[in-house]
Amino acid sequence: MTPTPIALGPTRTPLLEKAITAAGGEPAELDRARALIWNGGPAGFPDRLPAGIEWVQLFSAGVEEWFGTPVFDRHRDVVFTSAAGAFAHSVAEHTLMLLLAGVRQLPAHLAARGWRHKELAPRMGTLRGATVAVVGAGGIGRELIDMLAPLGARVIAVNRSGAPIDRPGVVETVPADRLSEIWSRVDHVVVAAPATRETRHLVGRAELARLKPTSWVINIARGSLVDTDALVEALRAGTIAGAGLDVTDPEPLPDGHPLWDLPNAMVTPHDSNPHQLRSVAFAEHVTDNVSRFVQGRELLARIDVAAGY
Amino acid sequence: MTPTPIALGPTRTPLLEKAITAAGGEPAELDRARALIWNGGPAGFPDRLPAGIEWVQLFSAGVEEWFGTPVFDRHRDVVFTSAAGAFAHSVAEHTLMLLLAGVRQLPAHLAARGWRHKELAPRMGTLRGATVAVVGAGGIGRELIDMLAPLGARVIAVNRSGAPIDRPGVVETVPADRLSEIWSRVDHVVVAAPATRETRHLVGRAELARLKPTSWVINIARGSLVDTDALVEALRAGTIAGAGLDVTDPEPLPDGHPLWDLPNAMVTPHDSNPHQLRSVAFAEHVTDNVSRFVQGRELLARIDVAAGY
Repeated sequence: MTPTPIALGPTRTPLLEKAITAAGGEPAELDRARALIWNGGPAGFPDRLPAGIEWVQLFSAGVEEWFGTPVFDRHRDVVFTSAAGAFAHSVAEHTLMLLLAGVRQLPAHLAARGWRHKELAPRMGTLRGATVAVVGAGGIGRELIDMLAPLGARVIAVNRSGAPIDRPGVVETVPADRLSEIWSRVDHVVVAAPATRETRHLVGRAELARLKPTSWVINIARGSLVDTDALVEALRAGTIAGAGLDVTDPEPLPDGHPLWDLPNAMVTPHDSNPHQLRSVAFAEHVTDNVSRFVQGRELLARIDVAAGY
Repeated sequence: MTPTPIALGPTRTPLLEKAITAAGGEPAELDRARALIWNGGPAGFPDRLPAGIEWVQLFSAGVEEWFGTPVFDRHRDVVFTSAAGAFAHSVAEHTLMLLLAGVRQLPAHLAARGWRHKELAPRMGTLRGATVAVVGAGGIGRELIDMLAPLGARVIAVNRSGAPIDRPGVVETVPADRLSEIWSRVDHVVVAAPATRETRHLVGRAELARLKPTSWVINIARGSLVDTDALVEALRAGTIAGAGLDVTDPEPLPDGHPLWDLPNAMVTPHDSNPHQLRSVAFAEHVTDNVSRFVQGRELLARIDVAAGY
């Protein structure tokens, strides 16, 4: 079979060339290629793609910054795919780390400069038997659910359709339009949904008020999904136990912001999926999608331009 | 079937009485019981048990303090069981938390008071594809192995016999007498072996020297298994990435000890299995073992007095 010509830009890396070749593709110039693997952002993206381009693979999992550009409108006949799913494992691992560190009070432990067993031990919790809401059961949510299963957590999964997610540890699947019902029933909340108009401030003052003083809120999706001011209030008042945030609003979180100093807030600077882990994961995703393209199968992580994600 | 009389001391709790009854036992006075569930330490243990006592269930998972007393010698016809395994889940969860928090550099993140992406992101690691030595594949080790599997870690399990541990994620089982071979091949080390003369300073200067600058050492077993002075040197020199310790030598770790101030040391004050989680887990273990006793089946966690654990 003749290798399928696939363009690669803006940076041709040996890792990605190998990923293309391994899948039955062949790195090619843009004007004779059938697809484009784009490992950069919107700046520098070609104004007009050649007519031969049927598919473009983008580098990021969340593509909202692309929706602020004319790229999708200008290329309505082209299929765009994101890297959603490709980075899921690393982000899920980070999420689990933040949730466990919260439940087991690692921030308070690290702040102690002595053997404070009597003070700290009674605060220690466990995920065993805990009810964890995983809001957004896409790639990250599903990987996380698999990581939570051996810990004995009971997962309430929230997805758009409410179609039951059949994975060990999931006790219930709730459709997004019934999200309001879950807050008083869960011990902890993980926000892993895409950023859309509908999900803005998905965790707000009212939602936080219904959680428990032992609840941890983890956001690894996008900062806009959580109302930062309401969260700061809840953290200060102790109406929830704490928060673990890899994403913030605003982002980057400015120096001097209260979240930096609250002892029950853990902030990581959107590095749950850092470059050194991402390159390898993206190359694996490219191999997978190029081989689907070559074989005429359905591509992973197709962007729904009308739906906005 | 007549319920089997089981004594309970020094403290009769409703939770344990229920655990005994649920298993086909009946709480009874010591002099007419066939077994004793002892939820205290060695102090206060009866000097001489009545001849009718066939089995004693102790409350802790590690029983070295009992070996310093004449209890076992005075009751050579009695079977003693520990709570080994009962608390495994909570300790395994804590272990996973420390390992993940280390690999993902949570201490450095919590110390930052600003958006230090450029400094922190390149230091971020992952357990995916990482080789983790689990030294001591008893109850805790096995629970941990199951928790590591969905994270994609490659586990080298170390047990006494070297008999292969057939669990997902275990790539190799090494017998304890070949432990010296593994140090240069692993990314991270979890110490989960019992404290015996043989395991004292199992992680010492020579072993630490063969680990990587990215390696984390986690000890949730007993402090004596790690050479504290050698560990402090390695942490100061950065020849390993860090350590997560729920147990220390000396214990409690005194105020002013260097481990409290090293930024790459996480110390939790032996609270991986705190009272509020332990009581429930012990009651489950009692139900399990009483029902085995009543049915004449093999008891869990039988203490091998000759072997010293």
